[in-house]
Amino acid sequence: FDVFVSAPGKAILHGEHAVVHGKVALAVSLNLRTYLHLKGTTIGNVCINLPNIDTFLCWELAELKQLREEVKRLDAELIRRLREFIGVTNGNLDTCNMAILAFLYIYLSLFGSGELPSLTLTVWSELPTGTGLGSSAAYSVCLAAALLCASGAIPTPLKEGDNTARWCQEDLELINSWAFQGEMIIHGNPSGVDNAVGTWGGMLRFLAGKIIPLSRVPLLRILLTNTRVPRSTKVLVAGVKDKINKFPSIMTPVLDSVDAVSCTCEKVLSEMTCEPITGEHYNILEELIDINQHHLNVMGVGHPSLDILCRVTLTKGLHSKLTGAGGGGCGITLLRPETDSSIVQATVQDLKDCGFDCWETSIGGPGVQQHSPLSVKEEVLEILNRY
Amino acid sequence: FDVFVSAPGKAILHGEHAVVHGKVALAVSLNLRTYLHLKGTTIGNVCINLPNIDTFLCWELAELKQLREEVKRLDAELIRRLREFIGVTNGNLDTCNMAILAFLYIYLSLFGSGELPSLTLTVWSELPTGTGLGSSAAYSVCLAAALLCASGAIPTPLKEGDNTARWCQEDLELINSWAFQGEMIIHGNPSGVDNAVGTWGGMLRFLAGKIIPLSRVPLLRILLTNTRVPRSTKVLVAGVKDKINKFPSIMTPVLDSVDAVSCTCEKVLSEMTCEPITGEHYNILEELIDINQHHLNVMGVGHPSLDILCRVTLTKGLHSKLTGAGGGGCGITLLRPETDSSIVQATVQDLKDCGFDCWETSIGGPGVQQHSPLSVKEEVLEILNRY
Repeated sequence: FDVFVSAPGKAILHGEHAVVHGKVALAVSLNLRTYLHLKGTTIGNVCINLPNIDTFLCWELAELKQLREEVKRLDAELIRRLREFIGVTNGNLDTCNMAILAFLYIYLSLFGSGELPSLTLTVWSELPTGTGLGSSAAYSVCLAAALLCASGAIPTPLKEGDNTARWCQEDLELINSWAFQGEMIIHGNPSGVDNAVGTWGGMLRFLAGKIIPLSRVPLLRILLTNTRVPRSTKVLVAGVKDKINKFPSIMTPVLDSVDAVSCTCEKVLSEMTCEPITGEHYNILEELIDINQHHLNVMGVGHPSLDILCRVTLTKGLHSKLTGAGGGGCGITLLRPETDSSIVQATVQDLKDCGFDCWETSIGGPGVQQHSPLSVKEEVLEILNRY
Repeated sequence: FDVFVSAPGKAILHGEHAVVHGKVALAVSLNLRTYLHLKGTTIGNVCINLPNIDTFLCWELAELKQLREEVKRLDAELIRRLREFIGVTNGNLDTCNMAILAFLYIYLSLFGSGELPSLTLTVWSELPTGTGLGSSAAYSVCLAAALLCASGAIPTPLKEGDNTARWCQEDLELINSWAFQGEMIIHGNPSGVDNAVGTWGGMLRFLAGKIIPLSRVPLLRILLTNTRVPRSTKVLVAGVKDKINKFPSIMTPVLDSVDAVSCTCEKVLSEMTCEPITGEHYNILEELIDINQHHLNVMGVGHPSLDILCRVTLTKGLHSKLTGAGGGGCGITLLRPETDSSIVQATVQDLKDCGFDCWETSIGGPGVQQHSPLSVKEEVLEILNRY
């Protein structure tokens, strides 16, 4: 058994913060992907390699079997026992421990009733961690898809000669629900948006806790910039709430306007899939980005680094907004179809010169998929095959 | 007969553009003033000196008498005849011709039934012209006040030993109505806000064509910056209207939010006159400035020069917004009571280094007033006495 899968990250296109106050948010897949290679082995070991976070662990099947037999209920008790098992005694889990916990939890749950398989699992992600780009969800989605395949619960959809393949809706539902389990372990109280984007890709409408995948959206080229300014989502969310309480008559209409930005954007994107795409479509997308960035500044979640991002990209005629929590963190820049590669490269360089990380990528691409080894980018394949 | 009067300019504190769409605007007096010196003479001449615009004209009383006798109706016909008289044959009046027209119109109207007095009138303004700061209204208010005094229609309120004095409400109403006549000649279709601010000073609430002077407002220290970027108010107003038509669901709440900014500001300013002024009052005024500046950017009336103004002043901890039409033009920066003079001077210098004109002044000060010669700033008095 040998399978390669990948899942995308996520970005909020419009509606961050407003969503906390009952407004629409649009979450889109971000084509910086997490890749997972699962290989059946015969050495009686379960090995996990997470080179992004320098984590390389192996357990003998025997110790995992014993662990599983101890535990009857596959939820809270298992998690408690797993924490003990990997030696976490306080509540403060780091990225590495959370990734291990999520893997062991899904592995033991899926193979709970039969033989535990000997396998080696290697994960490599293009996503920066801890920047609100859904890296943990992409990891959980990959884990769920690969382990569900290995357990036989879902098929491997790849046909001979294909590069990539996706699962049917029913299988995606199953992947998503197990990925959500992983997210629960990692985040405690996830919204479910990140794993849904990782599973279905494209764009999701998120409103009052309800997640609605949108049938068709165009693939949009973007730059994804990480300002590398650390921020606390909790503090930023609380700040917006305070501002709404302080100035209700001023802030309530701002949230309404953000809601209308999201709805207008959704409408334009849907038009772009059913009529010829024109420059005017892109003009409107750019205007919506600018408007929302100003609104996010009004909410108090802007940051000088994000102002720099907007200013630097605007000198190249490109429009940017923060994505996610703000106060630093990441921003997205829309590239037009006609934007010349030399402009893109110059912009990326300018942003790197500001001390930012910057990737040319796209939003609206596919969710979780199986890959033929040849369809995995060479540099990623090289890493996945290293272990 | 010898009288010195002055009237302030005006700035829009909040609500520019939104006022066109039925929302509240707050207009405040700007303590960059226009000074007028009117002196009775015995040489049988009427002379006007406008050194700001290099205009120095004299007429013999005889030609003005003849002109007045020709004309029965003191409105459209007089204006038509005055245009002819000063040699304007097409509709394109420059600042100089408009200023002369307004003067002759008020002079001939006020002295229509009696002897025409021989006099010399000199005006000097601290206000830049054509930047939306009400320089023409300040001029019209000064003309109206001085000529009404000279005609005996209103008294000269200055008592022996006073530096400055103001008129009673009834006299101010009369000054305002004649100043509005001057504005009609200069602007064609003025809103009446500028002459009202020049007359009453302080702050006015302007809503759906109705002008309500606010009883008491604190005097606020500001910087007034002219970016010197020329713009067309008409084009900017049309652009906002287009954006509202294009994105009604997005823009309507933005106008509502601006309205709430104006109302909140009015409330805070009124609180500042009846309770001890605290840092929190200033914090709120600063927040309102920032919010409105973002909203004006959403309306599309921002400009890179205004972004620079905001950024430069923020590096000194000071908050700025555009005032008036935007798209360049002028901006105001709030100074806090504790803002040190060295900070103010450094900021002014930084702004001048950007190529901007910048004045340290105040808003909310008195409207039209009579001055004793000694209460006129020395450098202004020197100019007024030069002619």
